[in-house]
Amino acid sequence: MDFRELERKVVAFREERGWGIYHTPKNLAISAAVELGELLEHFQWGSDGEILEAVKDPTKKEAIADEIADVVIYLTLLAHELGIDIDEAVERKLEKNGRKYPVGVTPE
Amino acid sequence: MDFRELERKVVAFREERGWGIYHTPKNLAISAAVELGELLEHFQWGSDGEILEAVKDPTKKEAIADEIADVVIYLTLLAHELGIDIDEAVERKLEKNGRKYPVGVTPE
Amino acid sequence: MDFRELERKVVAFREERGWGIYHTPKNLAISAAVELGELLEHFQWGSDGEILEAVKDPTKKEAIADEIADVVIYLTLLAHELGIDIDEAVERKLEKNGRKYPVGVTPE
Amino acid sequence: MDFRELERKVVAFREERGWGIYHTPKNLAISAAVELGELLEHFQWGSDGEILEAVKDPTKKEAIADEIADVVIYLTLLAHELGIDIDEAVERKLEKNGRKYPVGVTPE
Repeated sequence: MDFRELERKVVAFREERGWGIYHTPKNLAISAAVELGELLEHFQWGSDGEILEAVKDPTKKEAIADEIADVVIYLTLLAHELGIDIDEAVERKLEKNGRKYPVGVTPE
Repeated sequence: MDFRELERKVVAFREERGWGIYHTPKNLAISAAVELGELLEHFQWGSDGEILEAVKDPTKKEAIADEIADVVIYLTLLAHELGIDIDEAVERKLEKNGRKYPVGVTPE
Repeated sequence: MDFRELERKVVAFREERGWGIYHTPKNLAISAAVELGELLEHFQWGSDGEILEAVKDPTKKEAIADEIADVVIYLTLLAHELGIDIDEAVERKLEKNGRKYPVGVTPE
Repeated sequence: MDFRELERKVVAFREERGWGIYHTPKNLAISAAVELGELLEHFQWGSDGEILEAVKDPTKKEAIADEIADVVIYLTLLAHELGIDIDEAVERKLEKNGRKYPVGVTPE
């Protein structure tokens, strides 16, 4: 699935439910932050080693995957409201990053 | 671009720069939150109407698109470290959401 | 209660429970962000008018107050670990802000 | 300084500058999250040991203290708008936590 297909799916999902009126830019930006907070909860107390061990449990892994998906879904809805093409945005940002941090040069 | 292609690109990008050693699960989760904070900054003071007006300016729109891209890039790197397939995760989460909120039923 | 009294209380609370070993700077910073995410949840869908109406309900108001308290508690623990005096930090920041934004001058 | 004194100070600060009209609950909640994102940036790449070493530098320590102060300032303004007394909120939350996690009982 690419971002345009994802956009079609999540917009159709919310239109079927009449939720569009709540999907203002501010509300969607807050929603992405709420979900990212829930994602962070999985990284709150364990060490990196414990986290990598914990995700061997499929239930734990799916719980984290769900939170990542929620953030991606809200970002897609936010981008849709603002007329932003995430596919294009990511491509452009990777190019910018490549110019900012050339291979072989250590960032400060 | 789909998530698997994005994953290949961002992992190649960081490998070329030797940044992998910093990309622990905790660090990447924090990084996604840092970038989401920068995204939120664009929604801090304006009303929804003012935000929709502001993104008519291509420079402002690109600035917001860059922040969305940064969050997506860090989530992709985080998912990679945890062995999570974002494409699959989003598909599964949309199905779960569909069962949780059937069309025609108002959520509380 | 001032910040020094709060610091004594929350440090005593966690020492009695032996939680100190989990209270590393990174873990506490993540914890503050997790709680701020829970706080944001109360501002996710309602308009400002609806939120101000909702907090007339003491249960709702206490739920929001609890989340604010949680963020403050984790920031206090984080400051403690780093040897930062929040009281001093807030005083100094207010002075800096006063110099940055003099009365009668409109910020850009 | 206790929270009531802090509240008086930050409210006076913003009234002198006529910023009250921007200080809606949603905007202030977003602002607290933006500042927490800036705080997180200091914990993004270093290990806990490196962070504790870094704060021995007074400039670095003050930079982190400033971000903690910013979050506290916005939470105080948010609480003010909602009629929440942070002092009372923190006292009550510590009592709740004490009942939820009695000394000598290990949380799951």
